[in-house]
Amino acid sequence: MYELGVVHRNIHRADREVASALARFGAATVHEAMGRVGLMKPYMRPIYPGTQVSGTAVTVLLHPGDNWMLHVAAEQIQPGDIVVAACTADNTDGFFGDLLATSFQARGALALVIDAGCRDVRTLTEMKFPVWSKAISAKGTVKATLGSVNVPVVCAGALVTPGDVIVADDDGVVCVPAAMAKKTLEAATAREANEGEKRAKLASGVLGLDMYRMREPLEKAGLRYID
Amino acid sequence: MYELGVVHRNIHRADREVASALARFGAATVHEAMGRVGLMKPYMRPIYPGTQVSGTAVTVLLHPGDNWMLHVAAEQIQPGDIVVAACTADNTDGFFGDLLATSFQARGALALVIDAGCRDVRTLTEMKFPVWSKAISAKGTVKATLGSVNVPVVCAGALVTPGDVIVADDDGVVCVPAAMAKKTLEAATAREANEGEKRAKLASGVLGLDMYRMREPLEKAGLRYID
Amino acid sequence: MYELGVVHRNIHRADREVASALARFGAATVHEAMGRVGLMKPYMRPIYPGTQVSGTAVTVLLHPGDNWMLHVAAEQIQPGDIVVAACTADNTDGFFGDLLATSFQARGALALVIDAGCRDVRTLTEMKFPVWSKAISAKGTVKATLGSVNVPVVCAGALVTPGDVIVADDDGVVCVPAAMAKKTLEAATAREANEGEKRAKLASGVLGLDMYRMREPLEKAGLRYID
Amino acid sequence: MYELGVVHRNIHRADREVASALARFGAATVHEAMGRVGLMKPYMRPIYPGTQVSGTAVTVLLHPGDNWMLHVAAEQIQPGDIVVAACTADNTDGFFGDLLATSFQARGALALVIDAGCRDVRTLTEMKFPVWSKAISAKGTVKATLGSVNVPVVCAGALVTPGDVIVADDDGVVCVPAAMAKKTLEAATAREANEGEKRAKLASGVLGLDMYRMREPLEKAGLRYID
Amino acid sequence: MYELGVVHRNIHRADREVASALARFGAATVHEAMGRVGLMKPYMRPIYPGTQVSGTAVTVLLHPGDNWMLHVAAEQIQPGDIVVAACTADNTDGFFGDLLATSFQARGALALVIDAGCRDVRTLTEMKFPVWSKAISAKGTVKATLGSVNVPVVCAGALVTPGDVIVADDDGVVCVPAAMAKKTLEAATAREANEGEKRAKLASGVLGLDMYRMREPLEKAGLRYID
Amino acid sequence: MYELGVVHRNIHRADREVASALARFGAATVHEAMGRVGLMKPYMRPIYPGTQVSGTAVTVLLHPGDNWMLHVAAEQIQPGDIVVAACTADNTDGFFGDLLATSFQARGALALVIDAGCRDVRTLTEMKFPVWSKAISAKGTVKATLGSVNVPVVCAGALVTPGDVIVADDDGVVCVPAAMAKKTLEAATAREANEGEKRAKLASGVLGLDMYRMREPLEKAGLRYID
Repeated sequence: MYELGVVHRNIHRADREVASALARFGAATVHEAMGRVGLMKPYMRPIYPGTQVSGTAVTVLLHPGDNWMLHVAAEQIQPGDIVVAACTADNTDGFFGDLLATSFQARGALALVIDAGCRDVRTLTEMKFPVWSKAISAKGTVKATLGSVNVPVVCAGALVTPGDVIVADDDGVVCVPAAMAKKTLEAATAREANEGEKRAKLASGVLGLDMYRMREPLEKAGLRYID
Repeated sequence: MYELGVVHRNIHRADREVASALARFGAATVHEAMGRVGLMKPYMRPIYPGTQVSGTAVTVLLHPGDNWMLHVAAEQIQPGDIVVAACTADNTDGFFGDLLATSFQARGALALVIDAGCRDVRTLTEMKFPVWSKAISAKGTVKATLGSVNVPVVCAGALVTPGDVIVADDDGVVCVPAAMAKKTLEAATAREANEGEKRAKLASGVLGLDMYRMREPLEKAGLRYID
Repeated sequence: MYELGVVHRNIHRADREVASALARFGAATVHEAMGRVGLMKPYMRPIYPGTQVSGTAVTVLLHPGDNWMLHVAAEQIQPGDIVVAACTADNTDGFFGDLLATSFQARGALALVIDAGCRDVRTLTEMKFPVWSKAISAKGTVKATLGSVNVPVVCAGALVTPGDVIVADDDGVVCVPAAMAKKTLEAATAREANEGEKRAKLASGVLGLDMYRMREPLEKAGLRYID
Repeated sequence: MYELGVVHRNIHRADREVASALARFGAATVHEAMGRVGLMKPYMRPIYPGTQVSGTAVTVLLHPGDNWMLHVAAEQIQPGDIVVAACTADNTDGFFGDLLATSFQARGALALVIDAGCRDVRTLTEMKFPVWSKAISAKGTVKATLGSVNVPVVCAGALVTPGDVIVADDDGVVCVPAAMAKKTLEAATAREANEGEKRAKLASGVLGLDMYRMREPLEKAGLRYID
Repeated sequence: MYELGVVHRNIHRADREVASALARFGAATVHEAMGRVGLMKPYMRPIYPGTQVSGTAVTVLLHPGDNWMLHVAAEQIQPGDIVVAACTADNTDGFFGDLLATSFQARGALALVIDAGCRDVRTLTEMKFPVWSKAISAKGTVKATLGSVNVPVVCAGALVTPGDVIVADDDGVVCVPAAMAKKTLEAATAREANEGEKRAKLASGVLGLDMYRMREPLEKAGLRYID
Repeated sequence: MYELGVVHRNIHRADREVASALARFGAATVHEAMGRVGLMKPYMRPIYPGTQVSGTAVTVLLHPGDNWMLHVAAEQIQPGDIVVAACTADNTDGFFGDLLATSFQARGALALVIDAGCRDVRTLTEMKFPVWSKAISAKGTVKATLGSVNVPVVCAGALVTPGDVIVADDDGVVCVPAAMAKKTLEAATAREANEGEKRAKLASGVLGLDMYRMREPLEKAGLRYID
């Protein structure tokens, strides 16, 4: 934490297979599977809907209005990574546009998660390079001040350590610590196992009240029905 | 107001035909037709664009981070209802997802209006189950504390009494008290009667200044033209 | 500045050809080309994605909840104009809907930029009349108080003088003073000249670090790589 | 609800003695005593610290930027009343200043609670006329549009019916329905009965863990201590 | 507008006597006297209450996180000036602290108005150097990028031209264009002329309804009293 | 990170003397001395002005609307500690009031820093128990769900590890990692060493431009003076 002006080249990435497998569960299920921690604040929104992705975090610490370190980060990207960018102060500038996206995509990055602004969103949408950001802004940035790459960062309220798994979709962004990735995948798989059955029951008109056996605890809690 | 732990099973729903007929006018026209009251705050946004709906309100009072009462509410839904969920404190958690939507849809609910967060928005979009919410969040909720079903609630700044008509579209959400529904429908119908004619005139280049005879009142108000 | 109750009929519009030509560069490039000034705040969002437009500003100063002057402004629109509406206090009401849009479109307006709310967004989307606004709201407005047309206004934090060029797309809205339009067009053209080449290089895997020769300045700034 | 252009002259005020007695408990205790309902949103702040007050509500429904109905309300004030002003749309204008405060004070009003802005706060502070508001703003208002006096209103998220008891202090504003006032006073009194004893114990170093017998439920819930 | 990297040394200040005389009326009265224009957004708050001040504007255009130009501005201050600082993007950093305040005060500045953050507020309060700002933040700034001094700026939504009169108090900040200062002073004086008489009447229990002769227009507007 | 339901009893506190010594420099100076990291977001405000404090962090992870773990934390407090409370989701409820403050004070706590709401602020002010919070709210909380005590938490955007030094004053709250505390104290001491001299120079009218030798770099950067 708090190292400025450094780039860690060797990070411990979560197991690639596990990292990839988490995507299909989406942020909500993964967040539940982890025990309801690790979620970024809900102001983080995708620039276009419909993407569901997971990958290992390459982190970047930026200064407001300065995207120099995103260029430095590009070199550290490996296929399957998701770049996670935090900023030392609240800022909505457009740190990231189509040129950087071209470079990130060429390096194998799957997405960018940035607690700041992004721009060229029409082109990014055409390129199918997904970004989760706090803002969209045409305002460009300079390249003047050193931040860091691959240090632990706080991004939208969540601590992200390099190599953690990031899962993002239309519901938001969750960070799974590398050490918890495998267990989380198992828990998520278990959670989904009987979801189809539940959905079929509910679709047929069975009430959650009955399916989840809630009537008794509700009565115990004192719920009164009034006709 | 302010009853906790109760479910009213018998509510007086606005006339079904009137409730359904209001949909085609949309929130803006209905709001005007009511005399400009009953609108929820504009932070209430649809999770996907293009839906225009109306129905009778089944209300739910929730506690932050607890969606137990949404399950209780499901049993009270009748075809043509719209569930309106308020929360005792500001909260953006994802109270509602695809399983509850499956259940609500099976019961005949047309939509959910929730002054809090919702999740599984990609699946909800595929299911065509519209939700108006204050936030989208992957954060799930618990089932621990009693709220109420079918009590009057304040939702996004608007008072909603069970059985009122809810009209929602891309412009927002308006609540029409059951007692005002018929009169509002008539007023909305009257408002729209000559809209087509007005639109044709404006499209042909006639100015609103002339069509609405504004030039004289503007002059009286002191408007000066400077060349 | 600060004239209320006046309409300036003769304004000096930026060269039409230049004004039109700026559209294709988009807000981000134009903002850079101007020296990073003139951008409206990023809360200004398009009501639907995918439009990129530029035109000359007809300005309107509104009072909260009162859209009278938008009707007055309609008469001052010339083909190729973009109406820019400011408000004397923060307000999210729906000042603008499908009827005004029909009129504006008939007069040749290309878009509306309004530091307040707009409504009928589904119809506006079907009409392909783009609006950048701070909010979407079903709440209508009255026609009671004089503002002004074609006076300098502050819109979403940017000063807009009548006749300035407005460039708007999914990234935001930028105002180019008429006197800077030609120079800005040249600068934008120059900026884009070698963008294709850059993009190709980055797509092939060349790093921005090398392409922009950043390694030396980064080292001078003290960047340390840690293995 | 939703009547515009009316003034109800005869309202049922909560018992004056009960209304006055609630002040000394403050908003937090009264809110607890009511069962945690009726609280206005925490953006409602006093213009100066240190006041704790309670009284019966005279309600006002305002339109944005228009304070006409506050003058109408003045006539309906009786000694011991607190004026509660709601607005049909979000607005921060300064609806209330020293002249209206002079009038309200002369009529016996104890305070103003307004879901909008207020001004002349230095003079109001000197006059010791407390105001809870959403904003402070020098922006004045007009007197042009009818709202209502003494109709039920939604103020900062809370439903207030004329005659309800309002309790306000540095912690916020709570509305106690007239019918619940007596019971709430009893509950608040009971809550405070042994507060002094509790405070003494805690001050002497006894832990809440022991005083409230939390150790067992915490252990049951699974709390683990790690050395 | 929009000049970067320039310092205008010769500005036309509003008449010093007029500029000073406006202070005693305060922001609310001056804003009314100007015709309700020129007010900064209400998020601009004094760092301590109770100050009422007016002076001529020395303007500064800052970049986010960079306070270099405040040092440049110090040299341009003349006794009776108020420094008005705008920023090219939203930023809450603490641009201004006790050392700069010492310098500004030594040069004769009466106050700072900054659309960003300020720090050392305890010391500033002890020094009696008033600041109106959007935020308070311990975060310091760098000195790296050129902005401008004494160019027109948009500060908190208001256009400020160097030499304009700034009036600030607990209610907010208003900018009076130099050319309107004398007329505004006269209008403010006229407004206040009979305020004392009005206050006395209202304090004696006379209603605004009668004093302002509102009963007839209210009746005409359709107000109904219900017993 | 991310342990729920645990209490770490043995934490490594920063050196007590160093922790105490940092108070007199205040948040702004300490933040600079650390290299501009570790600052909490500026929405964290003291409930009353004028306090400047530093101490070692006892951390708490809370769930929205549930203050159970604050009671658990009380037992872990040692004289000189500052309790730092984070919440798993945004929440403004009043988690902390006068009874808990009495207990914390009895245990030797110097302050509370909470990324949520607090209440009983009038009593807390009288008790001289300082709190930095995101909100003030009368809304109470329940005691139902386990969080953790003395785990690393993200509080208002800053990572806080148990035992770190917290420095708080009217400018905000900064977290100094235990390992950096001594070096930061030295750097802060060095920074302040010649502050008195600087202040005297500036007070005598010497410009920062000259004292900091900025004229040459400004000229190099291209600053132009226009008469």
